[in-house]
Amino acid sequence: MGEFDLIARYFTRPAPQGRGVALGVGDDCALLAPRPGMQLAVSSDMLVEGRHFFSDVDPAALGHKALAVNLSDLAACGARPLAFTLALALPRIDERWLQGFAQGLFALADAHGCTLVGGDTTAGPLNLCITVFGEVPAGQALLRSGARAGDDVWVSGAPGQARLALGALRGEWALPEALLAPLRTRLERPLPRVALGQRLRRLAHAMLDVSDGLLGDLSHLLAASSVGATVDANAATHPLIADSASGAGVTGLSSMETLRRCALAGGDDYELLFTAAPAQRAAVQAAAAASATPVTRIGRIEAAPGLRLVDAQGAPVAGQFAGYDHFA
Amino acid sequence: MGEFDLIARYFTRPAPQGRGVALGVGDDCALLAPRPGMQLAVSSDMLVEGRHFFSDVDPAALGHKALAVNLSDLAACGARPLAFTLALALPRIDERWLQGFAQGLFALADAHGCTLVGGDTTAGPLNLCITVFGEVPAGQALLRSGARAGDDVWVSGAPGQARLALGALRGEWALPEALLAPLRTRLERPLPRVALGQRLRRLAHAMLDVSDGLLGDLSHLLAASSVGATVDANAATHPLIADSASGAGVTGLSSMETLRRCALAGGDDYELLFTAAPAQRAAVQAAAAASATPVTRIGRIEAAPGLRLVDAQGAPVAGQFAGYDHFA
Repeated sequence: MGEFDLIARYFTRPAPQGRGVALGVGDDCALLAPRPGMQLAVSSDMLVEGRHFFSDVDPAALGHKALAVNLSDLAACGARPLAFTLALALPRIDERWLQGFAQGLFALADAHGCTLVGGDTTAGPLNLCITVFGEVPAGQALLRSGARAGDDVWVSGAPGQARLALGALRGEWALPEALLAPLRTRLERPLPRVALGQRLRRLAHAMLDVSDGLLGDLSHLLAASSVGATVDANAATHPLIADSASGAGVTGLSSMETLRRCALAGGDDYELLFTAAPAQRAAVQAAAAASATPVTRIGRIEAAPGLRLVDAQGAPVAGQFAGYDHFA
Repeated sequence: MGEFDLIARYFTRPAPQGRGVALGVGDDCALLAPRPGMQLAVSSDMLVEGRHFFSDVDPAALGHKALAVNLSDLAACGARPLAFTLALALPRIDERWLQGFAQGLFALADAHGCTLVGGDTTAGPLNLCITVFGEVPAGQALLRSGARAGDDVWVSGAPGQARLALGALRGEWALPEALLAPLRTRLERPLPRVALGQRLRRLAHAMLDVSDGLLGDLSHLLAASSVGATVDANAATHPLIADSASGAGVTGLSSMETLRRCALAGGDDYELLFTAAPAQRAAVQAAAAASATPVTRIGRIEAAPGLRLVDAQGAPVAGQFAGYDHFA
């Protein structure tokens, strides 16, 4: 099968209408038409075999995840997904693989009304590069730089789930199958918090998504906002503990310490980390409820620079929880 | 050097203002703000080592080419470049290589006022994925589907130069250094026809860029427009012959036949192939002159489907000149 047949068979769908897409796949360029007053939010992510996914990963899960990590960037700005491009390097034409990949990709794309508008295919070591486009009212995008002293620090979901699954798959610790299965789903099919992200516009002050680890990503937000924070390690770990406790018989785990490391430094979560004024607590909880996404208050922004980690009693917690670095 | 240092050192520049970019590198998303009445043209290309470039290619030339092939897609729609994202998989951190790559990339970007607004870096087999954004007045983008029976077929520059250089570098034929050097520059540092593309808006009926071979790409335009064409093989080959004749002592070439194959089927040209009404010939020539880009009239669009290749006397020319297929 040639390149053009490949595009036609797996990646061409009926021409989209409206939703900001004026022209989709098939010409030299796609044409996007954001509505008046809207800005276009853009993000690119590249996924490489052996680094971002196992070579034997279910291709449908991979199709899901490749788009999910990009939608998570849109969510982190409060943008509504419109469209994406897909560039794909494939070592060989494997129709079964492509079919699975396309199924997982389009299932998530359709769930968010996000249209494939173009891309590229080539032979080469397996590599997926997606660029995603969303729209956000001009001036309302949530940036990393908006945190203010006195803000609460919030996080969605249960950070650490992906890392807990990864460690079990790598043999770092053991998890019973009943506990591993849902965690593995979080690792392989992360849910971008798109609905919550949009509801936090004009409510949160600053936001990013947790891809490299909770504390590592928080430190980026603090630097961009020129502020510091105190984080309650117990509060940040609690969603993961509560979740893991629902499975029985965790073995080989150095228990609390491992769960805490997963929660504070585990990557691949794609949860939203944001700050908002304490006066907005009820509104934040309402936004979370309306988008069916749990949120947890884990700390406070302070004027003094630096990231201070404390326990429930306010005593300092020692430990290194650096963000995941792809070249470390 | 970590991923974040890498981005900071080579790919972060002062925050851009205006020209459609509201927020550049450094947050979860970039923000583009097309002017009222403008659509956003988007294109993605992925370049893989060993397939799109030699592993020992000058990194500055590679930086140039990676962006050039994307700008060529904008040119083919008549769009004005605004911004791009860069996703980069690198087998190792080679600062000298990165410095050269960034220099070549930004030199071309700056020449076109095209701002780097985001992207991704990861470890992995060398892979470059660029997504480029341009603006075009709503409804004025030049598509592949607009050709009409009776239109002239035009091409810019001298298609075949890149293939002629590639063949010499591969040892398929020999070229004297004085002839090879400028052709190699065309292969390694193609000039996207951005100025011509914009001047052809409201003048040409259909347009695309020649990346896979003149006749192969023309056949895509014909299919999209549901028309056919007769192409004068001599007229299409003439710019390359005129150019090559300026060098002396071409050896090992089966002369005319090789030049014709390079012109009609050679890839990597990034010239514009377009159709326009015969009444617009003077206007097309004026657009070409104003953008300092030579153009040649090589054929005519006809209602009857198919691509007919003739010589200067109108007699059919035999031969296979299929487009380059990355999986062939």
